[in-house]
Amino acid sequence: MRLKVKHLDIISKYPAAVFNEKDAFEIGIKAGDRVLLKAGEKEKTCIAEITESVVSQGEIGIDRNVDFKANYVSIEVLSKPRSIKYIKKKLSGMELSEKEIKCILEDVNKEALSDIEIAMFLSAVYVNDYSDRELLHVTKYMVESGMQMEWKKKYVADKHSIGGVPGNRISPIVVSIVAAAGITIPKTSSRAITSPAGTADTMEVFCDVCFSIEEIRKIVKKTNGCLVWGGALDIAPIDDKLIRIEHPLSIDPKGQVLASVMSKKKAIGSKYVVIDIPIGNEAKVKSKESAKILAKRFKNLGNALGMNVNCFITAGEEPIGRGIGPVLECIDVMKILKNEYRGLEDLRNKALLFAGEILSMCGKGGIKEAKKILESGKALKKFREIVEAQNGSIDKDLESMVGKNVYEFKAEEAGRVMGINIRDIAEIARRAGCPADKSAGIYMEVKKGDIVAKDQTLFRIYSSKIRRLRDAINYAKLSEPIWISERYDLLVEKV
Amino acid sequence: MRLKVKHLDIISKYPAAVFNEKDAFEIGIKAGDRVLLKAGEKEKTCIAEITESVVSQGEIGIDRNVDFKANYVSIEVLSKPRSIKYIKKKLSGMELSEKEIKCILEDVNKEALSDIEIAMFLSAVYVNDYSDRELLHVTKYMVESGMQMEWKKKYVADKHSIGGVPGNRISPIVVSIVAAAGITIPKTSSRAITSPAGTADTMEVFCDVCFSIEEIRKIVKKTNGCLVWGGALDIAPIDDKLIRIEHPLSIDPKGQVLASVMSKKKAIGSKYVVIDIPIGNEAKVKSKESAKILAKRFKNLGNALGMNVNCFITAGEEPIGRGIGPVLECIDVMKILKNEYRGLEDLRNKALLFAGEILSMCGKGGIKEAKKILESGKALKKFREIVEAQNGSIDKDLESMVGKNVYEFKAEEAGRVMGINIRDIAEIARRAGCPADKSAGIYMEVKKGDIVAKDQTLFRIYSSKIRRLRDAINYAKLSEPIWISERYDLLVEKV
Repeated sequence: MRLKVKHLDIISKYPAAVFNEKDAFEIGIKAGDRVLLKAGEKEKTCIAEITESVVSQGEIGIDRNVDFKANYVSIEVLSKPRSIKYIKKKLSGMELSEKEIKCILEDVNKEALSDIEIAMFLSAVYVNDYSDRELLHVTKYMVESGMQMEWKKKYVADKHSIGGVPGNRISPIVVSIVAAAGITIPKTSSRAITSPAGTADTMEVFCDVCFSIEEIRKIVKKTNGCLVWGGALDIAPIDDKLIRIEHPLSIDPKGQVLASVMSKKKAIGSKYVVIDIPIGNEAKVKSKESAKILAKRFKNLGNALGMNVNCFITAGEEPIGRGIGPVLECIDVMKILKNEYRGLEDLRNKALLFAGEILSMCGKGGIKEAKKILESGKALKKFREIVEAQNGSIDKDLESMVGKNVYEFKAEEAGRVMGINIRDIAEIARRAGCPADKSAGIYMEVKKGDIVAKDQTLFRIYSSKIRRLRDAINYAKLSEPIWISERYDLLVEKV
Repeated sequence: MRLKVKHLDIISKYPAAVFNEKDAFEIGIKAGDRVLLKAGEKEKTCIAEITESVVSQGEIGIDRNVDFKANYVSIEVLSKPRSIKYIKKKLSGMELSEKEIKCILEDVNKEALSDIEIAMFLSAVYVNDYSDRELLHVTKYMVESGMQMEWKKKYVADKHSIGGVPGNRISPIVVSIVAAAGITIPKTSSRAITSPAGTADTMEVFCDVCFSIEEIRKIVKKTNGCLVWGGALDIAPIDDKLIRIEHPLSIDPKGQVLASVMSKKKAIGSKYVVIDIPIGNEAKVKSKESAKILAKRFKNLGNALGMNVNCFITAGEEPIGRGIGPVLECIDVMKILKNEYRGLEDLRNKALLFAGEILSMCGKGGIKEAKKILESGKALKKFREIVEAQNGSIDKDLESMVGKNVYEFKAEEAGRVMGINIRDIAEIARRAGCPADKSAGIYMEVKKGDIVAKDQTLFRIYSSKIRRLRDAINYAKLSEPIWISERYDLLVEKV
């Protein structure tokens, strides 16, 4: 069948061809079927959509993804790609071979699978998880499908947190200490997905974070380290295509998280990696037992990829540090680097723990050495170097950059802080404008276990926009993210 | 945030709002998130899509589903519907409560779930299936969400085949016999989804099949029966919304198939139902054991819904009857009704089996009585009545309506027909133009077990279009759907 081309002003995630329902019936296709469009030498596989009215009979709507200039195209109906069969196999609980995994991921990569087909794949991984073998194949293929860096250094280190804890901005400190110790640490970070800020969002307060591979190579050569956004690079590109569907489904299949993290570490050329697994009721991992299993999988996968991986299971029951949101986190980071860390002991100690571990893995001392580097000001100096290499400056008046609209959230009663709901805290910060509004966020005035008086400020909410602040306040009042017990001891209830 | 409305010339399955990526970042939304659009009194929940270029910063693209006339809308970000949580619960293998099932299906029905979310739900049902309790709740809610018919008759009968066997057009015969016996049988049928023809496609050769509930009531009142398309009615509307996603995923979760069939039977008011479960290597059900389990589930579900259900497990290893495709099937049906059934014994006997069972369930005799009605010409008379009540005529010159382009597919060697691949046969018929081209299809000249000479015609392919015929021939030659063994006995191989 030949159809007249109508160019539609839309861009689908996969190339779409829109048929009038009468033509579709005639050709024998349903929504979601694959068709091959041909015009002269040009060919393009599209996924069919059916309409009553957007295109008329005899017309075919093509989106901007299909760059056909022809006025007419001919249509051939294609059968489903083999990967669909393998996805169904995985959904049925069977293990996939290396070839089958490659076939699925290849199709994800070249956008031959529709969103609902990828959703079926992610559902299958969510429910049946990857076996160790599958996980290795998935990770390897994700590495191979993108850019890979190599460093002519013995020690190339990295750190990663599976996330979920607000604040917790240790990366700038860890990278500065490790790089100051002479170890190569090409740190790539993400932007916020559901959190108030990713390391990339926060670093952007100081400097650029979007660089090409060649630029990163130069920065690292000069300073031993970097703190850049990983998303601009062609590292494990399949990951982004899967995350795009994971997000609206709000699932993060464990196996896919492992593959995502480790493929990026492998592709960037890291060899010594420390991973942070925070646990807590509202954290991504709830129990120590699950965290141990996850840690073991990280280590095994790392080893199979030729990396040395250690994991720290850490407390994830309250924010780490006090600032939440890009500018507010920068304030915490600078205070620690400048050794003015009163009230920020948790963030400082955690950073030292991770930096020390990397130093120890690379045979350059341990936590004591890390502390020495931090206290001597060498870490601050290194941070300055890195930020300047990334076209920025650390000498910014951060206090003046904080959101002008402020609200003090106060204790309704006196007592002891029994719990802080980190999900609610994150949501309040997001409503205040994080991460797009760099000046927005929360500054925590209390920690778990603190004793507070009635009307004492528990946290401050900042925003550059009054409307966003109001939204954040409403949510804070509704969710009551801080649980205060009137009793001053730690007794919850006598039964 | 207020955005300028840009009306996009597309219709999404769910209301879509297209944001420029910069605005999306500012607002804090990702593709797939839900947003509430407001303009004056009007509100509409949409699913966000993100674009670099289709809409500019400050604009929002809305599809034709969103009938806002306003030039500006304000945006509110919504949290995910509760149903997502329940879908994830099902995906994790847990049983859902009645309330949770209702919540999911309600959201499917009011189009509050996106395609990928429905895909996750269907994946969950595919992998974990419904418990008996869940199945009953699903079916009940599917019935309640649509139109329901009631008949002031003691005996309201129905039949259903789970399908997959080409030809097999017993419904027009069964309905005619049963209605002639004085039993009410308001038969609704589907159109072809992946088969060459559904009963509705075939009946359309004789008469109209799209009627309103009121019209159906009149037809059935007059003739006791009908043979109409179910898709035009508001019966279990959720089913269509799920099938739209099942098709491109090429999965049919067993539990959902049960709910789909039984909800439609219940909604149309049937009380005595016979279900056909064909088994065979290429049939939907492979083994007798699986068929028995499925049959038991049909019966249990039927009983729980207050229906009397019997199932027949039938041979599904070759086409039933000889004609495949609307007009060719009509020829078979008319021959049997006119008692000129030589060579069509299988189709006739199967129809008698089902009609006899319904008669027996309704206390009106059994297969003998069915045969008497057929042989006496009463069934033919009844079929005429029904077709005429549906604005048609059975006195059509069917032979003259058969596709003019014919190809005889011949045996390459002499021997015995050992097997017929029904999937390939169906595919050939579809390529020839079925079901849109009513004149297209296949006429089988051999049955399993037949002894054939070299160059003997095995089947004929018909099409009204030479190009479609050629495509069908190519596929037939490639797939070799008929397996002939040179040995004349039934020995396959001596090991």
